[in-house]
Amino acid sequence: MSELLVDANPFPDGLDARLRAQLAFLVEVDRLKTVLRQSPLAAAARRENDAEHSWHLALMVGVLAEYADEPIDIGHTVQLVLLHDLVEIHAGDTPLYDGAAAADQAAREEAAAERIFGLLPPDQAERMRALWDEFEARRTPEARFAKAMDRLQPLLLNWMARGGTWRTPGVTADEVRARKAVIGDASTALWAAGRRLIDEGERRGWARSTATNS
Amino acid sequence: MSELLVDANPFPDGLDARLRAQLAFLVEVDRLKTVLRQSPLAAAARRENDAEHSWHLALMVGVLAEYADEPIDIGHTVQLVLLHDLVEIHAGDTPLYDGAAAADQAAREEAAAERIFGLLPPDQAERMRALWDEFEARRTPEARFAKAMDRLQPLLLNWMARGGTWRTPGVTADEVRARKAVIGDASTALWAAGRRLIDEGERRGWARSTATNS
Repeated sequence: MSELLVDANPFPDGLDARLRAQLAFLVEVDRLKTVLRQSPLAAAARRENDAEHSWHLALMVGVLAEYADEPIDIGHTVQLVLLHDLVEIHAGDTPLYDGAAAADQAAREEAAAERIFGLLPPDQAERMRALWDEFEARRTPEARFAKAMDRLQPLLLNWMARGGTWRTPGVTADEVRARKAVIGDASTALWAAGRRLIDEGERRGWARSTATNS
Repeated sequence: MSELLVDANPFPDGLDARLRAQLAFLVEVDRLKTVLRQSPLAAAARRENDAEHSWHLALMVGVLAEYADEPIDIGHTVQLVLLHDLVEIHAGDTPLYDGAAAADQAAREEAAAERIFGLLPPDQAERMRALWDEFEARRTPEARFAKAMDRLQPLLLNWMARGGTWRTPGVTADEVRARKAVIGDASTALWAAGRRLIDEGERRGWARSTATNS
């Protein structure tokens, strides 16, 4: 994937260089629609892609911001979720319950960030990279809330699928709770609701109580 | 489609009524991922869905806001594009070059707006409905820029597809220019670029010069 999508059909002459770079980036990010996640859709029998997922998080921010334990800037939080998965265009999706893939995830995603944001004019590349770093570091209330949405949304989809990725071999309800606990770093109320869904899922057998009863 | 998705698997007891309504709405909007548009993706051989499209517009707002002829609030503009197509969950996508479908589009979408936003608690339903009305009326700089993104994004995809929906039977390059001219209500620079792509597409035969040479 060394070529850009736009290389297959370059824009005509007569576009200013800055706008040309921005439009090339905006065409290239179309690839996010082809990066499949593990989560099943609630509305159809197929897996979700990263672009759909990112849209869903962005809408959730506006609806659920009132549950943030610290005040958040909604517009800023939305910017974080809109671009948080762009690195997966080159680094791929790393399943939440895949320890091996997680090992070199940071290095792969760092390189991917340079590559995708580097298509933009330098000032915008720097701004987007800073937003992505902010999301990853989770040191601002906005980044913590964005991460909470990133964990709550698949939890809703897994509930609707009566288990979904909770049924990944070897995964227990305790591990699901541990992976989802970051929701509580942003919102006590949303984590209480999320835990309620996991607890009830465990009770119904959609998530395993122990690693050995699978 | 009288039932909600969540009716197939209701949330457990113990969730507060307001949050329960918000989560039911957030599950229901998963359906936007199943509403297909006419536009072909640039990154894969399939049509785009409304959720992917909405994400793409939201990202475009941040990258292209500098070209707005009037100052815009980026966060507010992003809110408009994130929800602008939710009515299509019930009203369906109305192809840009389909005059018959456009005839009752407004009435179908009004009813759909009541239905989808009405799932939210009243204060949020009212706010979302107001944002959708603002988008549709195009009387604010933010709404005009949001509409410009909504017309520019498929123009980029059609360019990448060497024609795409420009090749719809009976459609001419002049009709494409007429439908896309609203981009110029928000941004002189982006409309100049969009027109450049259409003009060059016409020159290459990707859009017909007259209705009779098809």
